[in-house]
Amino acid sequence: MEKLHKLSLNTRNLYPENKESPIHFLHDTNTPTHLKFIRNHFSYPYPPETNISIFISGHVQKSILFTLADICKYPIRTVHCVLECAGNKRSFFRPKVYGEQWENGAISQGKWSGVSLRDLLLCTGINRNANEVVFKGRDKGVKKKRVVHFERSLPIKKALHKDTIVAFKYNGKPISYKAGGPIRLIVPQWYGMASVKWLSEITVIKNKFNGQFQSEDYMYYPLPPNHANVKPVTSINVNSIIQSPINYATLSSSKHLIKGIAWTGEGVVKSVRVSVDEGQTWQTAYLNKSTNTESYTWVQWSLLWHFKRKGHYVILVQAEDSYGRFQPESALWNRKGYGYNEITKAFINIE
Amino acid sequence: MEKLHKLSLNTRNLYPENKESPIHFLHDTNTPTHLKFIRNHFSYPYPPETNISIFISGHVQKSILFTLADICKYPIRTVHCVLECAGNKRSFFRPKVYGEQWENGAISQGKWSGVSLRDLLLCTGINRNANEVVFKGRDKGVKKKRVVHFERSLPIKKALHKDTIVAFKYNGKPISYKAGGPIRLIVPQWYGMASVKWLSEITVIKNKFNGQFQSEDYMYYPLPPNHANVKPVTSINVNSIIQSPINYATLSSSKHLIKGIAWTGEGVVKSVRVSVDEGQTWQTAYLNKSTNTESYTWVQWSLLWHFKRKGHYVILVQAEDSYGRFQPESALWNRKGYGYNEITKAFINIE
Repeated sequence: MEKLHKLSLNTRNLYPENKESPIHFLHDTNTPTHLKFIRNHFSYPYPPETNISIFISGHVQKSILFTLADICKYPIRTVHCVLECAGNKRSFFRPKVYGEQWENGAISQGKWSGVSLRDLLLCTGINRNANEVVFKGRDKGVKKKRVVHFERSLPIKKALHKDTIVAFKYNGKPISYKAGGPIRLIVPQWYGMASVKWLSEITVIKNKFNGQFQSEDYMYYPLPPNHANVKPVTSINVNSIIQSPINYATLSSSKHLIKGIAWTGEGVVKSVRVSVDEGQTWQTAYLNKSTNTESYTWVQWSLLWHFKRKGHYVILVQAEDSYGRFQPESALWNRKGYGYNEITKAFINIE
Repeated sequence: MEKLHKLSLNTRNLYPENKESPIHFLHDTNTPTHLKFIRNHFSYPYPPETNISIFISGHVQKSILFTLADICKYPIRTVHCVLECAGNKRSFFRPKVYGEQWENGAISQGKWSGVSLRDLLLCTGINRNANEVVFKGRDKGVKKKRVVHFERSLPIKKALHKDTIVAFKYNGKPISYKAGGPIRLIVPQWYGMASVKWLSEITVIKNKFNGQFQSEDYMYYPLPPNHANVKPVTSINVNSIIQSPINYATLSSSKHLIKGIAWTGEGVVKSVRVSVDEGQTWQTAYLNKSTNTESYTWVQWSLLWHFKRKGHYVILVQAEDSYGRFQPESALWNRKGYGYNEITKAFINIE
């Protein structure tokens, strides 16, 4: 009968296509391609490219056009990582903010294989005062009456990290077109906007890149009094979700396994604590260490709890990472709704 | 490229399976089977029945076991109707209520074919003081430590309405197992809980049926001071959704087609009005009459609006039916979260 329960993505929008993972029901450490969240800024690039290449130019010693065959000659590097949209959980911000109303599922995890961007950049050479590397996707559309491509930059240091890869496989198979294939960037630890899909051009620059998706979108704009403190969105905030019980479920008064996943950008998740009495007391959740051996992956956590008393409970979950960062009591509100990581809550009714 | 945009159901729960239609992106008057919302109280009945029959007994002159072949001998009756879960839009209640957190998609529409229940009941005969007809589904599970089937009753008058049918086809094809086939009840005008799936037994009774899903669930429990006013959930409230623009979208300052669907239980939708200035002025939407010729179907409505001024707008939509009922300014809060039909809203940002 299990076959009857087919999983699929939850649609937020179709034009452009934006769908989230049914994350509460995914218990593998690798999200299959058809259940990966989909986040597009524009319609899919058309026609699909057949003549795959990446042109690296700009502030380099020698511009090079790399074909897919050229790229494949470098040592293969595989990174197992979380990809999370910066807008994941946006729908939970109060006051509400505009943008795709993601719930918990704009996140996925899997094994990306490709070559270190570093290897390609060492081949072109980088001029001494290079500052950033700009990545251009083939997806484009109209923003403020101008046609713009999706373009993002990385600081030179992050671009040269061995795990920033030019990827052409996902979970051992060619990257699907919808997932940004045949070639996309993968930037572990950073929110998903950095992992540019349908990668076509890489440009090394001396200055600061100021594209639409770099200096206008994907910026934290805090409440008006703090408007000066505008900051770019970079690495993933420490965060968690409760996969079970389902929010607003009614359950019997017995033992229930409270479980979910927790993740962070830099560092690893160190602990997850759970409260069922509005934060008066906390229990440490069991961490499934086998899901946390690599530093870029989420960890599965769980806690068996005996709900003896009937009534309404709020389950609170707070993850803490190896840098001592933890989920805050209140999300840091920002106008575009990025990086929501308030203490995770599930409201349940014990009958 | 349109093929890339595959639609699927949005998952609310898997055990039992509860999924909603991607209703914002459905523009046909018939929802295909794979995009119909799924609402289960229990796991799917197992094993799937092969020896299909319905036993009618109780306060009748002659109990009869009808096989599917027997049923098919009666005149075919087709009803084109909305099916809406009583909990549709539950997630919008404030204060929040427990239960599946349906957004707008626990609704579908299609053509159900079968035979009038009336024809079968006239065959068994009904005793003079019969009061209700009870319908038993094959789906069952534990509620309050007892195994119960999903069972619902109808007043005798509604049971004898020619359009209350024992259905075995949906949009011209056998009803899928997941949709309650091979045989289910269809009760136009009433919320979906009345349209019992996997129908196996029909019992005519003298008294009032008091099953779990009749007198405990599917009751409107208003705020405590009005606790005396508990009422059963019956016919569908007049209601609407905005399919476009998407809630919390950012749009350009130009003309946009505001569109959606509106429906009601008894009667038909008479008008749909739209405001973009917080209810100070209202415009009458165009009703696509071809979608409203049958009294049980939704009507498509639309209004072209020129958003000239940049800023934040709230689009308000209020449907009114032929009985003069209209969507209220505030939903009637009730503890189990049924029948939400507050004036429909979409928040948009014009840039």
